[in-house]
Amino acid sequence: MTKTRIMIALVVLLAGLKSNGQEALFGGQEIVSPEINKDKSVTFRLLAPAADSVFITGDFLPTTKMKTPMGEMDAPGKKLLSKNGEGLWTYTTEPLASELYNYSFIVDGMTVRDPNNPFVIRDVSSLTNIFIIGGGKADNYKVNDVPHGTVAKRWYDSPGLGMDRRITIYTPPGYEDSKEEYPVLYLLHGAGGDEEAWMDLGRTSQIIDNLIAEGKAQPMIIAMPNGNVTQDAAPGMGSDGFYKPVFMAPKTMDGTYEANFMDIIKFVENNYRVKANKENRAIAGLSMGGFHSFHISRYYPNTFDYVGLFSAAIMPREDATGEVYNNINETLEQQYKNGLELYYIAIGKTDFLYKANQDLKKQLDEIGMPYEYVETDGGHIWRNWRIYLTDFAPKLFK
Amino acid sequence: MTKTRIMIALVVLLAGLKSNGQEALFGGQEIVSPEINKDKSVTFRLLAPAADSVFITGDFLPTTKMKTPMGEMDAPGKKLLSKNGEGLWTYTTEPLASELYNYSFIVDGMTVRDPNNPFVIRDVSSLTNIFIIGGGKADNYKVNDVPHGTVAKRWYDSPGLGMDRRITIYTPPGYEDSKEEYPVLYLLHGAGGDEEAWMDLGRTSQIIDNLIAEGKAQPMIIAMPNGNVTQDAAPGMGSDGFYKPVFMAPKTMDGTYEANFMDIIKFVENNYRVKANKENRAIAGLSMGGFHSFHISRYYPNTFDYVGLFSAAIMPREDATGEVYNNINETLEQQYKNGLELYYIAIGKTDFLYKANQDLKKQLDEIGMPYEYVETDGGHIWRNWRIYLTDFAPKLFK
Repeated sequence: MTKTRIMIALVVLLAGLKSNGQEALFGGQEIVSPEINKDKSVTFRLLAPAADSVFITGDFLPTTKMKTPMGEMDAPGKKLLSKNGEGLWTYTTEPLASELYNYSFIVDGMTVRDPNNPFVIRDVSSLTNIFIIGGGKADNYKVNDVPHGTVAKRWYDSPGLGMDRRITIYTPPGYEDSKEEYPVLYLLHGAGGDEEAWMDLGRTSQIIDNLIAEGKAQPMIIAMPNGNVTQDAAPGMGSDGFYKPVFMAPKTMDGTYEANFMDIIKFVENNYRVKANKENRAIAGLSMGGFHSFHISRYYPNTFDYVGLFSAAIMPREDATGEVYNNINETLEQQYKNGLELYYIAIGKTDFLYKANQDLKKQLDEIGMPYEYVETDGGHIWRNWRIYLTDFAPKLFK
Repeated sequence: MTKTRIMIALVVLLAGLKSNGQEALFGGQEIVSPEINKDKSVTFRLLAPAADSVFITGDFLPTTKMKTPMGEMDAPGKKLLSKNGEGLWTYTTEPLASELYNYSFIVDGMTVRDPNNPFVIRDVSSLTNIFIIGGGKADNYKVNDVPHGTVAKRWYDSPGLGMDRRITIYTPPGYEDSKEEYPVLYLLHGAGGDEEAWMDLGRTSQIIDNLIAEGKAQPMIIAMPNGNVTQDAAPGMGSDGFYKPVFMAPKTMDGTYEANFMDIIKFVENNYRVKANKENRAIAGLSMGGFHSFHISRYYPNTFDYVGLFSAAIMPREDATGEVYNNINETLEQQYKNGLELYYIAIGKTDFLYKANQDLKKQLDEIGMPYEYVETDGGHIWRNWRIYLTDFAPKLFK
């Protein structure tokens, strides 16, 4: 085959794939969606000539109210796209504030991904498309032209849980070329999450790379373990293979994880150049991970100088029997007496755990334990957890 | 809030989200799809009451023929699902051979993902669902209960390209706890790929973990760089942010990448415990990565003892001007004279590059350069590249 024939072959192959095989398989379309316009409005497009209705739903639309036995709660809004003569559906938003947003289309009642946007994040068993509006706080969620840390997926031995388990480890820019020792933040996910969640949904490596580059956060190692004690790894990444993930894995809030957390600390401190002392350990988590952080930090009351509770569940379920959950007040008091640099509580005004966190504040007030309290708009959502991480990380290891 | 009230709140929140908000946003359905049956047939299900037709397309269906100016080529087959009274569409395959398969649904003409299967892989700009049928060669593509290597996403400085670039590095089980030095395989992706491709589409860490555990492959480091010289990282992972990826990035086959490949080798050899000599360096790649491997290995003719060309493009395009592409025969002869342990060529019988690879064999025969030649069924597809990697890796560093 001559050079020219190979060139022709390549072009023809691509054309063929686009118009026939791969086009059908992949569903790609020669249109751009989403398109971020100059005024920061966003245009969405979907080619669906056979559809009777195409809606978009996403967290940038005004929420609607849904009734529940607990009262009204927020549900994502939706908007109808308009269809042109070629069957191209279009919708343009208002100008949007800087944020990482997610969305889906609803075509004749069925929720589908945007075939022109390959960027998705998995939350529990579902994928949604994402996009970022820059020019504000979401600039911290972008990969900017700054030094980048390394993100490793490693397996460690957990003797307590009797298995090798997968963990995500962020080491800061320069770690490999230095002889320095670093502080460590243990960053825990919520129910339905795993060792991928803080990286994929939380944009942790981007946030920390950017904060370090801006001189706002100390270079630190971040350990993101899997908090579901029956899993060795995230769905699809472990020996359970591919299966449909569920929101609440068994045994995730029965004390087993907290009681075996030292396996994780031991692994990190034996395998990385860390400052292995209380002054250089932080623990934080969202929702169930906030619950884990609350209980781990008082169960090992002389281990962490920094604790972050992001939209945290607090009190154990009534069926929880783990000894971790005994003597809550006593261990909290012990933790306080041992000394703490920062006890950080953050919650959204509409979070279903708002009241639980107000109760925690009262409990801490009663034992005279100081804390920093941050209240934001919004509820139990990743948008808030990225904000809390961006606010919390600069306060560490100063 | 009491413990009981929190439990109720959680349950209600979840129920509320499932039935209203998240259900609409995420599109999850309380059905299982795909379901792998005992006889290794697979049942697919989609709830789409408003749809007039639902087809499935995937690489497990008999291909159909499509006409192109080059002759007939294979296109994925499709099958109509059957609809029941509740609007649930179902299709069950024949029993399937062990393989990693991909598929999509086509609902009223629009290609969509399976909302009940969160496992997808991205190929260029498109996502397809995947599943694995075990009990044969695809057992090597699974995460088995064996020791696992570490997969790191790192950034290295490329002075030649004038930027920091992202690279995927696999280190074998035990690397971190040993003082040993390891051999290195440089594993290159094809057009449309990037530093994620061999991990996500190629199942490289699973294949190598399993081959090492079975005693079939030597423990080795695998460096998977990004071969698109205008990118610092895979789409969405670099400073270009989120955009719709294209099949052929600019300047990917003009010699720039090959001429700067020593930046990558230098980074790996300065940052990992490697045996930094020819006997312990291998280079292999698929399609464009096979092209790169062909040219890099003869342009630096005393660098690699093992070369793998998987469905490789061979000859440069007529508009390629890089000095890398001068003196092809002379550098090949020099490479041969310098000594080689393995020159491995693998191609599928229906690959559009089949003839080009036969021409290469003739060229090598003419200069008396020995090679190992593997011919498989099928064409220019990932299924073959996983097979070639599984076959090639055990031959290295023996």
